[in-house]
Amino acid sequence: MNRHLLSVEDLTSDDALHILDTAHELSRITDGAIRKLPTLRGRTVVNLFFEDSTRTRLSFEAAAKRLSADVISFSAKGSSVSKGESLKDTAQTLEAMGAELIIIRHGSSGAAARLANSGWVGAHVINAGDGTHEHPTQALLDAYTIRSHFDKRGGNLSGIHVGIVGDILHSRVARSNALLLTKLGASVTVVAPPTLMPIGVESWPVNVSFNFDEVLPQLDAVMMLRIQSERMDESYFPSEREYSRMYGLGSNRMKLLKSGSIIMHPGPMNRGLEIASAAADDDKSVILEQVQNGVLVRMAVLYLTMGGPQLISEGVTP
Amino acid sequence: MNRHLLSVEDLTSDDALHILDTAHELSRITDGAIRKLPTLRGRTVVNLFFEDSTRTRLSFEAAAKRLSADVISFSAKGSSVSKGESLKDTAQTLEAMGAELIIIRHGSSGAAARLANSGWVGAHVINAGDGTHEHPTQALLDAYTIRSHFDKRGGNLSGIHVGIVGDILHSRVARSNALLLTKLGASVTVVAPPTLMPIGVESWPVNVSFNFDEVLPQLDAVMMLRIQSERMDESYFPSEREYSRMYGLGSNRMKLLKSGSIIMHPGPMNRGLEIASAAADDDKSVILEQVQNGVLVRMAVLYLTMGGPQLISEGVTP
Amino acid sequence: MNRHLLSVEDLTSDDALHILDTAHELSRITDGAIRKLPTLRGRTVVNLFFEDSTRTRLSFEAAAKRLSADVISFSAKGSSVSKGESLKDTAQTLEAMGAELIIIRHGSSGAAARLANSGWVGAHVINAGDGTHEHPTQALLDAYTIRSHFDKRGGNLSGIHVGIVGDILHSRVARSNALLLTKLGASVTVVAPPTLMPIGVESWPVNVSFNFDEVLPQLDAVMMLRIQSERMDESYFPSEREYSRMYGLGSNRMKLLKSGSIIMHPGPMNRGLEIASAAADDDKSVILEQVQNGVLVRMAVLYLTMGGPQLISEGVTP
Repeated sequence: MNRHLLSVEDLTSDDALHILDTAHELSRITDGAIRKLPTLRGRTVVNLFFEDSTRTRLSFEAAAKRLSADVISFSAKGSSVSKGESLKDTAQTLEAMGAELIIIRHGSSGAAARLANSGWVGAHVINAGDGTHEHPTQALLDAYTIRSHFDKRGGNLSGIHVGIVGDILHSRVARSNALLLTKLGASVTVVAPPTLMPIGVESWPVNVSFNFDEVLPQLDAVMMLRIQSERMDESYFPSEREYSRMYGLGSNRMKLLKSGSIIMHPGPMNRGLEIASAAADDDKSVILEQVQNGVLVRMAVLYLTMGGPQLISEGVTP
Repeated sequence: MNRHLLSVEDLTSDDALHILDTAHELSRITDGAIRKLPTLRGRTVVNLFFEDSTRTRLSFEAAAKRLSADVISFSAKGSSVSKGESLKDTAQTLEAMGAELIIIRHGSSGAAARLANSGWVGAHVINAGDGTHEHPTQALLDAYTIRSHFDKRGGNLSGIHVGIVGDILHSRVARSNALLLTKLGASVTVVAPPTLMPIGVESWPVNVSFNFDEVLPQLDAVMMLRIQSERMDESYFPSEREYSRMYGLGSNRMKLLKSGSIIMHPGPMNRGLEIASAAADDDKSVILEQVQNGVLVRMAVLYLTMGGPQLISEGVTP
Repeated sequence: MNRHLLSVEDLTSDDALHILDTAHELSRITDGAIRKLPTLRGRTVVNLFFEDSTRTRLSFEAAAKRLSADVISFSAKGSSVSKGESLKDTAQTLEAMGAELIIIRHGSSGAAARLANSGWVGAHVINAGDGTHEHPTQALLDAYTIRSHFDKRGGNLSGIHVGIVGDILHSRVARSNALLLTKLGASVTVVAPPTLMPIGVESWPVNVSFNFDEVLPQLDAVMMLRIQSERMDESYFPSEREYSRMYGLGSNRMKLLKSGSIIMHPGPMNRGLEIASAAADDDKSVILEQVQNGVLVRMAVLYLTMGGPQLISEGVTP
């Protein structure tokens, strides 16, 4: 396993399956009375967040704590970063304070890779979202969730058809999922209005559609993306109502869903915009399982990047 | 014991006494070299605060940590909540991340009960203040403090006369205390200017007075409420000076205090407004004991709602 | 050892050396597989920060956690302090919640001493920066860093020449360092433009210079101070470029550095203003060692103020 997790692109299909298998193993161990493992006791991981994302930050924090790590949270707001300190100096400072792993969220595509590959720090780096580039742990938790629902099909996701619907243009979630799910054998269709479809999407390993109703009945998993309200102001689409009618998963579309299919959303949801409550709360919805699996997958990523089985043999402090 | 603590109204007198007795037991255990109990090791509790209240949040955090729980702090500011996520989705997300108990502070009366009773989550819910409705742990810590000062009177508070003075209209502290203290046998008089007395107060189990000087000499415990400065702008009273003269516990009123009586304040104090430093720092003041007892009572509430003695038998993770 | 650390002025040279020796001992113990000591298990320390300083706060937090303490972080923003609560009430409240040690950062010179000496609290107090007065742990970590680079010279710093360069006027770092380093036997020269040299500097135990180039070749350690951008607006110097040319450690000055000398900076750096990247990233730079040593020195200070060896014999909770 690599010592960093920077992008889905870096992962082989075997790497990804190994992470998913490890997450599954962790879920079995921590299911009963034992909720916490001593694996990372005495180790410090840092949440270095240049963008707000309470949800992702708390998920990583929960994962780290369940492995008994100490967690430092560094938000760029009100810190030396807002006084102009560089990413390099901030990261080196956190490492000098004892951080052995840095979870970074940054507005610039490539920031995580830069941090990992510039020789600035020796710490492990996990990309928790970089610009419009990638969000690999989100894709992994989505793959984990899909896999757990179609497990009879074996180790990979061959034969599964996943639709990713909404703002493909700005979404690192869409990008990472398209790459990972196809790598694992699934077929993926991205669905969006033309204004929210990225230029060059034809080079992605996916099918492209502008017609949600046509695609929907074929999907095993329907992944609805969040519409950022700021896009509205930028006139990527005429109105919320229009968007919702064309590309939202409303109650009227529920009857088009294939039997046995699942509804996904990375959260936080805009209920009534890209997803209706009828869909979010339906039996087909696995949205909360995604959150739950997020913690497991992140535990696996922390464990594996920091050394995996080797960690155990290094011994553990009191 | 109930699995939630939503309001004093829900508690029987026996429930309340059981919480106070448990808090007392915890104070005896953690008094010496042992400051921390392993009771909630591996369990996650979350502070879900939609209103700022550093004091209450830190008290719950201290209580949870002394029971070895992991604490997640979720402030609504800068989070997905400010992006329009609903209480339901936020709470379900936190539960999916592993939270077994949610401590909620919310600006709307009834928010805690709604969270507990809507079937949204399976987690335990503790009300840390909901609108102008209730703040049950504050009332419990006040009852604990009163009890510890008049302990020869036995288990309940019969024979004790408590005055609650100030902004009764907007105060959930006043409401919860009036209900709890009378339930425990105390007699309660609420004292306020007519503009700050709630309509319908005559249905409360309390005496009502507009004359502080008349009531003061009869009180065993004088509970001064904080005046929110925003009330001033809303012209509930003519001026700070006028309020202080009529309803503040100034040095001139100290001589009216009954021998053996105690002075209380939920904090933070406006010294010089509702309470003079001469009163806050007097030997009769038990204001810091209230803070100290707050941690103990919250430990008891966490312990009991999450299962009490059963917790111990479930075994504890490393 | 004293029960507080308020200023370098209070420390004897033996006190200071004892802290440095203890930090060294701690570095040896926590170097290998053991990263965390159980020394402060069950104890609560609080970061009471009235000014933002992520770096110092995180360093203390890391130090406390490595000693297994529970850490409460109290930022004055958005808290009852911003509603007008006094330092006294805030500190007493935190102590009542269980804090046994208060790390205070405050904008007013003397705030830490006031807190420690007014009888308000029984907790230990550590000054993490008070106005333009002192920042003792910064001076201690600097002394530790210098000592580790010139260790053959024995226990103290005699024979070492340290230059402190920049905004001496507003810098508590400069003040604490000048006092401590000379107390430990070093000779110190402060270098600054006349507008940034404090009135009365002639009473300090240091040499004063306005000419960086003249002093530089004699220095064993060159300590560059951060220029606060707000000073620029207050016209303490004509322009950033002018300041940098006269008093910055630019690449042109690197050739003037004595062989074996070290470059220091308390961080965060303004690269290109008081220090060029060529200097910050040079082999002579020990800036990240300073950060690393900061955690060790703060561990030593926490340990010693809270009782030192006695802590061990008091026994430790589960």
